[in-house]
Amino acid sequence: MNNRIIKLKKRLEKEDIVIIYNESSNPNPNFQYFSSYTNVSGYLIIPKKKPAFILTNTRDYEQAKKSGLNTYLITKEQKKNSSFVLKEMLQKKRIKFQNIGIDKENFRLLAFEKLKKELKGRYSDVSVICKQLRAIKDEEEIKSLRKTCKITDMVFSKLVNKFKFRTERQVKYFIESEIRKQGAELSFPTIAASGKNSSIPHYDDEQKLKKGFLILDFGARVNGYHSDMTRTLYLGKPSSKDRFFYDLVLKNQVSCLDEMEEGKRCSDIYDYSNKLFGDYKDFFIHNLGHGVGLQIHEYPNLAADVEDVFLEGMTFTVEPGIYFEGKFGIRIEDTVILRKGRAERLTRSQKELIIIDKN
Amino acid sequence: MNNRIIKLKKRLEKEDIVIIYNESSNPNPNFQYFSSYTNVSGYLIIPKKKPAFILTNTRDYEQAKKSGLNTYLITKEQKKNSSFVLKEMLQKKRIKFQNIGIDKENFRLLAFEKLKKELKGRYSDVSVICKQLRAIKDEEEIKSLRKTCKITDMVFSKLVNKFKFRTERQVKYFIESEIRKQGAELSFPTIAASGKNSSIPHYDDEQKLKKGFLILDFGARVNGYHSDMTRTLYLGKPSSKDRFFYDLVLKNQVSCLDEMEEGKRCSDIYDYSNKLFGDYKDFFIHNLGHGVGLQIHEYPNLAADVEDVFLEGMTFTVEPGIYFEGKFGIRIEDTVILRKGRAERLTRSQKELIIIDKN
Repeated sequence: MNNRIIKLKKRLEKEDIVIIYNESSNPNPNFQYFSSYTNVSGYLIIPKKKPAFILTNTRDYEQAKKSGLNTYLITKEQKKNSSFVLKEMLQKKRIKFQNIGIDKENFRLLAFEKLKKELKGRYSDVSVICKQLRAIKDEEEIKSLRKTCKITDMVFSKLVNKFKFRTERQVKYFIESEIRKQGAELSFPTIAASGKNSSIPHYDDEQKLKKGFLILDFGARVNGYHSDMTRTLYLGKPSSKDRFFYDLVLKNQVSCLDEMEEGKRCSDIYDYSNKLFGDYKDFFIHNLGHGVGLQIHEYPNLAADVEDVFLEGMTFTVEPGIYFEGKFGIRIEDTVILRKGRAERLTRSQKELIIIDKN
Repeated sequence: MNNRIIKLKKRLEKEDIVIIYNESSNPNPNFQYFSSYTNVSGYLIIPKKKPAFILTNTRDYEQAKKSGLNTYLITKEQKKNSSFVLKEMLQKKRIKFQNIGIDKENFRLLAFEKLKKELKGRYSDVSVICKQLRAIKDEEEIKSLRKTCKITDMVFSKLVNKFKFRTERQVKYFIESEIRKQGAELSFPTIAASGKNSSIPHYDDEQKLKKGFLILDFGARVNGYHSDMTRTLYLGKPSSKDRFFYDLVLKNQVSCLDEMEEGKRCSDIYDYSNKLFGDYKDFFIHNLGHGVGLQIHEYPNLAADVEDVFLEGMTFTVEPGIYFEGKFGIRIEDTVILRKGRAERLTRSQKELIIIDKN
């Protein structure tokens, strides 16, 4: 039985059973975490006192068996009543389901209502347990994360060396193509936002490259594990005001990394970052960072008013930024891991301002 | 006010208001459909008798305004109580919320429970209305779908002409790189499954290319609209048995396209396909197809026992296949649109068996 499932069972209190539901077109990261399998639609059933198993359809049955967990089939005919099939199976196996744990963060309301109709137990939320377990990475996960961050660095270094692009689209294409060449997937659609476009944190258009700051936010995915890095370049000649704001963000990011420590609260680091921005803190319009792993945004959350605490083995981003609407924006982001009580950078690309001035 | 929102309001019965929730890391297609915007986290509020508006955070505020809808801000301080902010706003605007429509197919349980705590109305499901509206494509959507299908065809034709790959990964990289070169996104991670791997419909590994059937399942995405096409090539010399099974699938697919007609039930076409497989119908282990648009899998569903009916302007896939576990699989899939009462193919790549025999 796998170690992750053992840890989950230990954290359960009243739950007799945990039910995790996955649709391959809307993957549930908990399904992948506990079954090591993502591309399978169906239920992962984790009874507290019996072995876990998967219940899936004819299309995904052969693939699900590779998880190493016992796998049972929902036939074509049973498909419309899969909750009923599940109930019968639990009764046959004499598995208790009075107290049912589900991950409410990922369970969709309609799927839940169908399940509840058949399985009339008391439902409780195990989302927090799942995301806390997933936040502390094991050696296998750290290996994947190191690899995907290394690819991200390599791609960035190539990009800077070969920079002769005219459009945001060309920049995005270069980055994504280089990531794919390394055999990795994309972590998320690349952001390349130049000139005034850089003032939109999640800019998603594609225009001609404008002079000024160019925000590049991208990452790779290896074995399902994401990297996430942002660098802000300058196209043309930066003014002293441009340099001032770049340094403000850079110092902020580096100071936050230094300040991080096991046991500190994530909200304290967010407050620290916010304070460092001084008069400009209203232009820091997003959180300081987020956990990263099987999901691009996961636990913990480096934000105001959260209870999350930094623990050994957590991987997350640190990404302060400032944005002046309609003018420009600057963001610097690393993916880091908490090792030996301190933040260790997994993305290691240059953070001193890179200036590309062809004329 | 946009036409899609008008149509939604007309379909409402008891609902005073519809609330659609989006997280940019788990995009809700209904949010994109009604607001024309995807990369924004927050609420889209559609009161039956007043203009729709967006409620979003500081990070996405500037972007959300581009939707053309009224946009309101949840400040950093209000973030933890966004449902409360929403309630206050509704009260201030004198918008009724006794009967609240939500899309239960997409709403996550935890987010719903938070909403319900503040907004104590009667909740009903508008998922079916939303997906039925989205199923009938307007001219703008059809333009995007035609474009993405054309890119898919172009990429396939290039692939066949330049076929000198040794691994499944190289094939995937070529396809995905060509799609990106056209300025499109990927519809989903490409499937390239050779030899016995082809017997797994959603195969997701990467190995050396084996002789025998090679299933290629891929698509592009333009303006958020997906294409989805599968072709099965043959590497080496097909035996007469191989040809027999290929023809069985091909005839099935072509006959299904011919048989399709406005007003027919989707389950009837599924049954028809199933029946055409005769003695081999147990090896047809998935549905015949699915709607395609802003989501890669949407309404209607070409499957057994569903009520869905073919209507003018629907776009969907038709993809019969057979799979012999541990041996081989064959699937042929087009994205089609129902126009003038009949199925018109949007993907038009060659379906006669393409044999690649280098030795």
